[in-house]
Amino acid sequence: MFPDLPVEPVLEVAGVFVGAMSGALAAVRKQFDVFGIMVLAWAAGLGGGVLRDVLIGAVPPVGISDLRLMAAALAGGLVMYFGHPRLERARRFIVVMDAGALALFSVVGTVKGLEYGTTAVAAVVVGVLTGVGGGMLRDLLTGEVPVVLHHRQLYAVPALLGALATVGLWRLDLAGAVGLTAVAVGVFALRVAALRFHLNAPGPWRGGGR
Amino acid sequence: MFPDLPVEPVLEVAGVFVGAMSGALAAVRKQFDVFGIMVLAWAAGLGGGVLRDVLIGAVPPVGISDLRLMAAALAGGLVMYFGHPRLERARRFIVVMDAGALALFSVVGTVKGLEYGTTAVAAVVVGVLTGVGGGMLRDLLTGEVPVVLHHRQLYAVPALLGALATVGLWRLDLAGAVGLTAVAVGVFALRVAALRFHLNAPGPWRGGGR
Amino acid sequence: MFPDLPVEPVLEVAGVFVGAMSGALAAVRKQFDVFGIMVLAWAAGLGGGVLRDVLIGAVPPVGISDLRLMAAALAGGLVMYFGHPRLERARRFIVVMDAGALALFSVVGTVKGLEYGTTAVAAVVVGVLTGVGGGMLRDLLTGEVPVVLHHRQLYAVPALLGALATVGLWRLDLAGAVGLTAVAVGVFALRVAALRFHLNAPGPWRGGGR
Repeated sequence: MFPDLPVEPVLEVAGVFVGAMSGALAAVRKQFDVFGIMVLAWAAGLGGGVLRDVLIGAVPPVGISDLRLMAAALAGGLVMYFGHPRLERARRFIVVMDAGALALFSVVGTVKGLEYGTTAVAAVVVGVLTGVGGGMLRDLLTGEVPVVLHHRQLYAVPALLGALATVGLWRLDLAGAVGLTAVAVGVFALRVAALRFHLNAPGPWRGGGR
Repeated sequence: MFPDLPVEPVLEVAGVFVGAMSGALAAVRKQFDVFGIMVLAWAAGLGGGVLRDVLIGAVPPVGISDLRLMAAALAGGLVMYFGHPRLERARRFIVVMDAGALALFSVVGTVKGLEYGTTAVAAVVVGVLTGVGGGMLRDLLTGEVPVVLHHRQLYAVPALLGALATVGLWRLDLAGAVGLTAVAVGVFALRVAALRFHLNAPGPWRGGGR
Repeated sequence: MFPDLPVEPVLEVAGVFVGAMSGALAAVRKQFDVFGIMVLAWAAGLGGGVLRDVLIGAVPPVGISDLRLMAAALAGGLVMYFGHPRLERARRFIVVMDAGALALFSVVGTVKGLEYGTTAVAAVVVGVLTGVGGGMLRDLLTGEVPVVLHHRQLYAVPALLGALATVGLWRLDLAGAVGLTAVAVGVFALRVAALRFHLNAPGPWRGGGR
């Protein structure tokens, strides 16, 4: 099983840390105060998991009760609070790290949904939400339309494919460490490819005339 | 009981479908990508029920776990995705269909609250929320102030009256198919009358001087 | 225990009433209709508690099921609906009352979290959220960035210190009426001092160079 891997908790903390940095950076840009910056770090790093846990009835959510994860979010916020004059230039590094967090969160979130006995479709929804929900909360709290809904560049689609693959493995009784790691690597690779090669989802249909 | 009617599941699916179309249309207008359009279809068609289910503890909500309802939302989104160049002109039809969804959702939502053993006041709240919550989520996710809060034209008020009437029938042990259908028809009629005759709720009080 | 005090329910109702006034005032300024004004009164007066209850699994939340609290929110909304031409001038009074609500909500919210068996960190989160969540919902529903995140003047920090102190007392078995009242008075005093002496939280770090 995935949770047995010693590497998985490390990656989860790393994902929260990177997500928190993205939230704190958005807050810094909006000139929030230090409390607001930490709230945004929390929301971006842990908000997706909180939404998942509320939807599947896993309350209180780990995002408000797990000291390790809370500390990771706080640390990400503090690093960005003090480091933003320099870290803004490390955008490429943050974006790649974020792809890793997306991959991990979508797989782990789907597994958690399945472990709580949801239907397959609900597991896919909460898996994707674990991956993209933190960024959506970050955007809503800073007064922006969630970037994942309109940016075109593939972000949710890799998470969706990863969640579907995870459910498939689970159904086939193949959701062990090797299978789930392979799915997460695939999600990561597709997201990085989208960044590298500008793979875009289509916008509104313009009709057959064009 | 209302849920025994064979017609009710059909109407519920139709309500989700129409709600999803309104969400997808809002997303098309904001130039969201295809993923964002489908998320908005889901949010507008099923978001009210999701909020209701989270508030009464019916998790996971049917809005993320019921394949039939999810398919209805997806279908509504796809129809608007491909049909929006023509469907924008069918606004009147969509608005009348939406009145039907409002009527059905507010009655069904109130009944579900009562079935979960809530207080009467909580059943009214979740009934109204089932009716108007999807539209509120749609507006928040597209960066708009929820239209139901400021538009004046009666929308929430019919849902509120319908929820109150539903609780009344339930208390009198009259919440059968006939009674609930009558309430839903009343909500629908009041909403259509508001559209036709421009019935408005008052804005902020201006004092006795005017 | 705090809940045994006859004074506590009175203060809780007063807190909801004042919160509701702030929500209704924001809605009046945005020219919402009477339904929107009442929704904002509810959201600002009871929204923090609703978020808390959803996160700790206390569903349905008291904010939608307790008739006494709902009536307090409605009353606050109605008073502001009819009284806003005069009450806008009573801003100082409302701000001080709101400090009392913040103090009470953060202490009571933390205690409720602990009573539901959350971890200490979760109790602190829901305590602060009980205090500041209503205002955040008010701002999001009126299309504003939550003021608590960027205003600088200390608002969440007193609530945070109060929640931490409440957890400390609970751990020491000192969370009786006297201890909790002392914490609430401290939160109130710090918030009023922040208003009086313009105590601000820092904004984004500017680096050692300045």
